[in-house]
Amino acid sequence: MATINPAYARLTAGYLFPEIARRTREFQSAHPDASILRLGIGDTTEPLPSAATDAMTTAVAGLADRETYSGYGDSEGQTTLRQAIADLYTSWGAEVKLEDVFVSDGAKSDSANLQSIFATDNVVAVQDPAYPVYVDSNVMAGRTGTKNEQDQYEGLVYMPCNAENGFFPALPEQKVDLIYICSPNNPTGTVATKEQLKAFVDYALAHKAVILFDSAYAAFIQDPDLPKSIYEIPGARSCAIEVNSFSKIAGFTGVRLGWSIVPKELEAEDAGPGVLHGMWTRRQNTFFNGASNVVQAGGLAVLSEAGQAQTGELVSYYMENARIIRECLQEKGLTVFGGENAPYVWMKTPEGVGSWEFFDKLLGECHVVGTPGAGFGPSGEGYFRLSAFGHRENILQATERIREQLSL
Amino acid sequence: MATINPAYARLTAGYLFPEIARRTREFQSAHPDASILRLGIGDTTEPLPSAATDAMTTAVAGLADRETYSGYGDSEGQTTLRQAIADLYTSWGAEVKLEDVFVSDGAKSDSANLQSIFATDNVVAVQDPAYPVYVDSNVMAGRTGTKNEQDQYEGLVYMPCNAENGFFPALPEQKVDLIYICSPNNPTGTVATKEQLKAFVDYALAHKAVILFDSAYAAFIQDPDLPKSIYEIPGARSCAIEVNSFSKIAGFTGVRLGWSIVPKELEAEDAGPGVLHGMWTRRQNTFFNGASNVVQAGGLAVLSEAGQAQTGELVSYYMENARIIRECLQEKGLTVFGGENAPYVWMKTPEGVGSWEFFDKLLGECHVVGTPGAGFGPSGEGYFRLSAFGHRENILQATERIREQLSL
Repeated sequence: MATINPAYARLTAGYLFPEIARRTREFQSAHPDASILRLGIGDTTEPLPSAATDAMTTAVAGLADRETYSGYGDSEGQTTLRQAIADLYTSWGAEVKLEDVFVSDGAKSDSANLQSIFATDNVVAVQDPAYPVYVDSNVMAGRTGTKNEQDQYEGLVYMPCNAENGFFPALPEQKVDLIYICSPNNPTGTVATKEQLKAFVDYALAHKAVILFDSAYAAFIQDPDLPKSIYEIPGARSCAIEVNSFSKIAGFTGVRLGWSIVPKELEAEDAGPGVLHGMWTRRQNTFFNGASNVVQAGGLAVLSEAGQAQTGELVSYYMENARIIRECLQEKGLTVFGGENAPYVWMKTPEGVGSWEFFDKLLGECHVVGTPGAGFGPSGEGYFRLSAFGHRENILQATERIREQLSL
Repeated sequence: MATINPAYARLTAGYLFPEIARRTREFQSAHPDASILRLGIGDTTEPLPSAATDAMTTAVAGLADRETYSGYGDSEGQTTLRQAIADLYTSWGAEVKLEDVFVSDGAKSDSANLQSIFATDNVVAVQDPAYPVYVDSNVMAGRTGTKNEQDQYEGLVYMPCNAENGFFPALPEQKVDLIYICSPNNPTGTVATKEQLKAFVDYALAHKAVILFDSAYAAFIQDPDLPKSIYEIPGARSCAIEVNSFSKIAGFTGVRLGWSIVPKELEAEDAGPGVLHGMWTRRQNTFFNGASNVVQAGGLAVLSEAGQAQTGELVSYYMENARIIRECLQEKGLTVFGGENAPYVWMKTPEGVGSWEFFDKLLGECHVVGTPGAGFGPSGEGYFRLSAFGHRENILQATERIREQLSL
C-alpha cells in the first residue's frame, strides 16, 4: 500500500509563478483585447550571444558526425567548462578550483536539490522575502511544519529583510544550521556588502552552519566594491556552497545551464573536509547525468573573451531597463529599491494596498504584470517586484502606461 | 550545526559505472599500449539522426533571433513534444494522454527522483539484478538500512531474477509498496510478457502498490507480441508510473532528454486519482525548470515520421551488434541471454569465476570492458553484461579477441 510523502500536504497554494500565470490568463480571457506586458517572471527576452549560438551549432554538427560524436559525459560537467567557471571566480578575486565546480541544468535545480545532502532535522533559515524554491524544497523534504497564522512555516527561521534593515537580515537569534542567502537578491534587488557577508560567514564558522549562497545575478553588479561571490570572504570555503547560472547573463533561461560550487574544505558538524563534496558528487552521479553536451558547449563559449563581452552588452541592456523602471516609479512618487546592481526593481506598494491587490491593480489599470512581494514570503507583503528583463520597447510602453494610467 | 543526511553513509562503494571507469583507467595506465574496447557502459556511439540535428540547429538559430527567441518553458515540457510522446504510446496500443507526460532531462533523473513523492516508510521492491539508480536513490532517501551479509540493503525487498525464472521475478511474498520493474531489462536484456506484467499490475491494484516501470529500451523490442509499455496492460493507469528516454534510440545519452508518464488515474493508499499527478507536477515545478528547449526541439524531430525511420536504423544497427556478440559468446560455449529484444547481452560467467573476477579476466586477456553482474545486485553474481552499443568495427574486434584470446 503505497503512501504519499506527507510533507507535500503542508505546501500552501501553487508555486508562485504558475499562480501569476493563472491570474494573467484569467484577466486576458476576460479582456481579450488587452495587450498585456509581462514584467513578472524574470524571463529573459533578448537573443543568445552569437558566441553561444555559434558554439552550440558547432556542437550539434559534431554530434551528427561519427568521428566527433560523444555520448555520456561526466555528471559533474565537462572539464573545460568546469575550468572556465573556476577561472571566472579567479577573475573576481575568489578562490574556486576545478574540482569544486559541479555543472548542472540550472541554479533552480541546485537550489532545490542541495538540501538533500543534509539531515532532515537541520534548522533552515531563509531571508524573508526569498526565492520560493528555498522554502518549498525544504517543506517538501519534511524540514517544516504547516503554515501558521503569520504565514510562516513552523520550524523554518524567517530572517526579515525590509526597508528598515536595508533588505539584509540580522544574524539569527536562535541557532540555525542551513542558511540561504541570495545576493544580488531576488526579489529585493539589493546586494550584500562584504561586511554583511562576513558576519554570516563568521557565524557559520563559529556554529558549523552551512550557507547556501545564490549568486545567480552576480554579473549584474555594477559597483566594484560589492562581492560577486561569497568566496571573496575569508573562511567561506569551509562553510558555504554557492550556486550560479547562465540563465540571466546569457539568455539561457530555456536553454538550461548552471553550476554549484561545493569546496572540498566544506565541513558540517559531523563531517570533516571532503565529506560533503563527496556526498554531492555521489548525489549528482546517482540523480543526474550531466547537463546537455550541446548546452555545455554554449556555456563554455559564453565564458570566452568574446562571450563575456557579449554578455556584458546583454547585462547593460537589462540594467538600462532597470533604470527606466526605477525612474518611472520614482516619478510616480513611489519608494523604490534595487535595480542598480540587480535586474529587479523592488517598490513599496501604496499605503494600504496589499501586494496581491497591487498586482490586480497594475494588471487592471495598466495591463502590466509584476510580482507581488507577498509571494516571496510574509515580509514581502507591502512590496512589489518589477523585472527589468524585457524588450526595451515593452519596458518603455509599460512605464508609459504606469506613468499615465496608474492611479495612486 | 549542520549535519549530513545519515542515509548516505549506508551506501556501499561508488556508483557502479565510475567504479568500472576507475578500474579501466588503472589497467590502462599499467598497460599504456593496450587498445581497450568498451562494452561496459551502455553508451551510444553512432551519430544523432539528421532529423534531430537539423531541428536542433534550427532551434539554436531561433534563439539567436530576437523575433523567435524564447526563455523559460513549462517545467512539464513543450506541448508539441508532450503530444508527440502521447501519440507514440497510441501507436503502441497504450493509452497515454498529453497531460500524463512530463518531459525531463533523462530517465535516470526521473528514476531517481520519482520516489520522493512517496512516504519514506514505503517498502520498496526491486528486481535483482537491477539498474543501480533504483536502489541507490532509495538508500539515499532513507528507505533502507545498511547492507547485510547477503549484500542486500536491510528493508529493501529483492526479487531475484535468474536463469531459473527466465529473469522475471515471482510476485513478492511480503506486502510491498513501490515496485521497480525494468523491461526490456537492464542488465539482463530480457523482456517481460504481457502475462508477466499483468500479474504485477493485478498485485498493485489489489494492494494499492505503485509500479515504477522503466521502459527506456522499449524501442529495441523486435517481437510484436511483447509489450513496449505497461499501459498496454488493463488497469495500469491506476497503479503505474512509466519512464522512458531518447538516450538509446536517438543517441541522446549526452544530449539529455527523457520523460515520465504519471497518469491522472494513479492512486495510492492515501491518495485518490489526481493527487500523485499533482504532486509530481509540483515537484517538477519546484525542483526542475524543464529540459533544454534546444534539446526538446531535437526530441520532437526524433518522433516525426522521418525521425522514427532514422531511429529505426540506429536500433537495427545496435541489434546487429547484439547478434554478433551473442553468437560469439555462444561459439565460446558460454550460456547467453538477452540481446534479442534489447541491446544488452547477459551471460553466465564460467563455473567458479565471479562477476568482478570475469571483469578483470576479460580486461586482462582481451582488453575488453564489460559490466560485472554483481554490480547490479547480489543475484547478478555469476553473470556478466556486454553492451551492444559500439561501432561495428569495435564490436567485431572485441568478439574476435574474445574468440581468440579468452581462456575458458
